[in-house]
Amino acid sequence: MLSKNRIKYINSLKIKKFRQLNQSFIVEGYKSVLELLNSDFTVELVLATQEFQQKYSSILSQHKTLFETVTLTELQGLGSFQTNDSCLAVAKTKENDFLCAEKNEYALVLDDISDPGNLGTIIRIADWYGIRKIICSENTTDLYNPKVISASKGSFTRISMYYTNLSEFLSKNAKSAMVAGAFLGGESLYEFKFSATGGYIVMGNESNGVGAETESFITHRITIPRVGEAESLNVGIATAVILDNLRRGEKRSNG
Amino acid sequence: MLSKNRIKYINSLKIKKFRQLNQSFIVEGYKSVLELLNSDFTVELVLATQEFQQKYSSILSQHKTLFETVTLTELQGLGSFQTNDSCLAVAKTKENDFLCAEKNEYALVLDDISDPGNLGTIIRIADWYGIRKIICSENTTDLYNPKVISASKGSFTRISMYYTNLSEFLSKNAKSAMVAGAFLGGESLYEFKFSATGGYIVMGNESNGVGAETESFITHRITIPRVGEAESLNVGIATAVILDNLRRGEKRSNG
Repeated sequence: MLSKNRIKYINSLKIKKFRQLNQSFIVEGYKSVLELLNSDFTVELVLATQEFQQKYSSILSQHKTLFETVTLTELQGLGSFQTNDSCLAVAKTKENDFLCAEKNEYALVLDDISDPGNLGTIIRIADWYGIRKIICSENTTDLYNPKVISASKGSFTRISMYYTNLSEFLSKNAKSAMVAGAFLGGESLYEFKFSATGGYIVMGNESNGVGAETESFITHRITIPRVGEAESLNVGIATAVILDNLRRGEKRSNG
Repeated sequence: MLSKNRIKYINSLKIKKFRQLNQSFIVEGYKSVLELLNSDFTVELVLATQEFQQKYSSILSQHKTLFETVTLTELQGLGSFQTNDSCLAVAKTKENDFLCAEKNEYALVLDDISDPGNLGTIIRIADWYGIRKIICSENTTDLYNPKVISASKGSFTRISMYYTNLSEFLSKNAKSAMVAGAFLGGESLYEFKFSATGGYIVMGNESNGVGAETESFITHRITIPRVGEAESLNVGIATAVILDNLRRGEKRSNG
């Protein structure tokens, strides 16, 4: 049976302050936990039902010491989500290590993405389209928020994230690179040629778009052409469409 | 002050059974309500703060008889969402009228989309990409669910929806048309040529994809090329990327 202290500890990790204090975060659901165990994150503990441990015994055998057996009811009382199923893990957060786009690489830049579901979705999209690095403004929602981890569907294990002051970052690290930003009224994404030498793709806040400070570093303003009448697209959707056009263009020029 | 009966009536409309019984649904938030008033929906009533009515008095003048003035606190007690702001409307649902793709037109087909947020997002995406009609399987979540209406960001006023048995529908109405479906392992979307004479684009359930019965009507299996490692994309994201490739291809061939 779960100790009161452990319940208290896990619940505290739903709050950013305590995640930072303990340098730990929660991962919920069997798919995400399996990806976590398979990643370079340091796992503190896994709470799992007996059924889960039996079902995945071959995969889990090298992690046996991490497991504590709990009932489904105990788990459901702990989790943040209705979809919480059969296991929950606690892992150590990573250091906020410096990242930038290498030559021929594109990195995403997020300017104050505030909705955790959107950030998680963007991480999953980046992972689909082979983007390895995301640079976030300091006000972008916390990567280790359980809703971000959940929405990323395990992709948080493969994408490197770096939170920083975007103006300082771009002024130092994007001097000769393409810095493309999504705006209404920019160049059509269908005509736009992404630089073959890589760079940055900047997505702005859900309500306010790219902020004025960050905007001054944008070298190319791009727009997703609209055929119908909706006023805008969600930032996750826009990210996917832009990355799809980037990769489509690369496939075309490679043959 | 709001009468108890009115509060009870509005709360009942959060439940599908009562929406069907009353043939009415709720629209929350000022942007969606303004689009509703500007649409061909029949509006029953609008609850709005005095501030809202003053701010939009020029737009609202022809709808004066519909308004009841309420306080923000009264509204927040009623709404389904935290973002509920300054007004809430009740409108009549539309008849489930037959729809199909005309010559040279693409319609979306949704096979058991179960998440209301996904359905709302898909409606918004359809509206951005100029798709006017969505054919839904009978098990697709209810269009008039407040979460669908909210996620569609007003686009529900411009898109026509038809709920039907998909097998019967496709067997009768898609005889010589292209019926493209999103699958893993199909033809690359980047190579795929959408028929210039229109047809149907089928998106499947969040967990199970396109059902076996519907699958038998698919003439072309298409796949969004993956560069990275994420296992899948959310169905809303996939819809946007497919429609973006459709419209991009059309723009290329028209000029």
